[in-house]
Amino acid sequence: MANIDTSLPPETTGAAAQLATRHSDEHPLKLYGGWFCPFVQRSWITLFEKNIPHQYVEINPYKKEAAFVAMNPRGLVPTLAVPVNDGSKVRRPLFESNIICEYLDDAYSDEATYGPHLLPSDPYERARCRLWIDHISTRIIPAFYKLLQHTPEKKYSLDQAREELQSHIKPFVTEMDPEGPFFLGTSFSLVDICLAPWAKRLFLIDYYKDGGHGIPQSGGGEDENLWARWRKWAIATTDRESVTATWSSEERYILAYRRYAEDTTNSLVGQATREGGRLP
Amino acid sequence: MANIDTSLPPETTGAAAQLATRHSDEHPLKLYGGWFCPFVQRSWITLFEKNIPHQYVEINPYKKEAAFVAMNPRGLVPTLAVPVNDGSKVRRPLFESNIICEYLDDAYSDEATYGPHLLPSDPYERARCRLWIDHISTRIIPAFYKLLQHTPEKKYSLDQAREELQSHIKPFVTEMDPEGPFFLGTSFSLVDICLAPWAKRLFLIDYYKDGGHGIPQSGGGEDENLWARWRKWAIATTDRESVTATWSSEERYILAYRRYAEDTTNSLVGQATREGGRLP
Repeated sequence: MANIDTSLPPETTGAAAQLATRHSDEHPLKLYGGWFCPFVQRSWITLFEKNIPHQYVEINPYKKEAAFVAMNPRGLVPTLAVPVNDGSKVRRPLFESNIICEYLDDAYSDEATYGPHLLPSDPYERARCRLWIDHISTRIIPAFYKLLQHTPEKKYSLDQAREELQSHIKPFVTEMDPEGPFFLGTSFSLVDICLAPWAKRLFLIDYYKDGGHGIPQSGGGEDENLWARWRKWAIATTDRESVTATWSSEERYILAYRRYAEDTTNSLVGQATREGGRLP
Repeated sequence: MANIDTSLPPETTGAAAQLATRHSDEHPLKLYGGWFCPFVQRSWITLFEKNIPHQYVEINPYKKEAAFVAMNPRGLVPTLAVPVNDGSKVRRPLFESNIICEYLDDAYSDEATYGPHLLPSDPYERARCRLWIDHISTRIIPAFYKLLQHTPEKKYSLDQAREELQSHIKPFVTEMDPEGPFFLGTSFSLVDICLAPWAKRLFLIDYYKDGGHGIPQSGGGEDENLWARWRKWAIATTDRESVTATWSSEERYILAYRRYAEDTTNSLVGQATREGGRLP
């Protein structure tokens, strides 16, 4: 039992608690999530952006309910329970947050009801968005955890971890629409959603690590134009209503991420980072 | 220079050589590939399945042409050079084989000209296909390399590597249409394409490793129904015309994969496997 992060506060707070309450009634489409999990937040932001009727069910990933595990044997969060449209109570599970987000954009496609699509209609632009979603998922996010989980015992220094994070953010910024504020310009998209939860969590690195995340807040030297574009993106994205509405109280994140910062978390992501492997 | 796999035969042979010759004329849509690379074969199979006009350009991934690297700074193969439809000679790069395959299915969507779509139209079924494409890419394929690159010095045994590969294949088979022969039944799809190149390369494990890949060829014990379904899938997929037409002479693969089997390859995939990290 010592392996379970029992220090984790069990419920949403702040704005996210209000949103969860508004979506607590029984509904055939269910998002099973944990309030502090950034992968869950991706799916939650997408539901909010498209105003999709659903039920939000808070799950403690370290103590999963049996009924939930029966539907989704891998027991991952987020899981989206998708109803079979035959009047039965049968639900089919979807997991992997990026796949859930693209499913929601695909399945709720009537723009008059659900607003603009979150991926472009042009096939090349769609593919380019997928390339940068892949870059975020396989490069930027692992570097975020490597920095957050840095301890003096690591073979790499804190400065090296900071440089690695910045080295993966730079090519992403270069691919952004020059004006912005979002990746595609004025349209908010799945690319922004893919990274938004970690942009929102950058303050945790400032809180826990000497010298902070190191991304220039002003005067970024020869790269100042690039970092100014990054800041424009980060502010517009983290201030977006769908992002702030799915956000709990900041002090709860500080509590929840303490074990990451001390590199003693037993979450799947935390362990994979510690072992130097790919994220699960 | 000792780091370069100069022993690699430089060109397509067999059926793939005939296909490459038929697609050697200048064309605005270009696939840059290496004949032995299974990621390239995914894209090549997709072009063949949809009969998409294109030019195939053979690239030695260890000695990349400057013009190619200028278009695609990350220099990955496969790269698809996609023309801008403005009469200019400008080309935009796409990489990551699964993203290229989905792009081709998206961009060449007229079924009268290009045949049936390679992903289902139902959003849940599309998402389910993406889940299993992800499972193949992040679990089955890394286990394939872990087994192929096994040497007596490894911390894991050959039997453990065989069991790991089988443990990732089993849930995939369970998700297949019960009749088949393909993942979705009678329709060949991007899920089949995602794994086909490695199914075709399983003989290399039999060639190089004592006891072979270990997947039961008959009499699979209590799992025989499952392994029979696997064999039905593997035979139908590896015999598919698009798979055999993009295949060079078998002895060339034996040459090309010797350094993998000895765990001395310097390919990105080979190095990542050796270091226990995620695939690039």
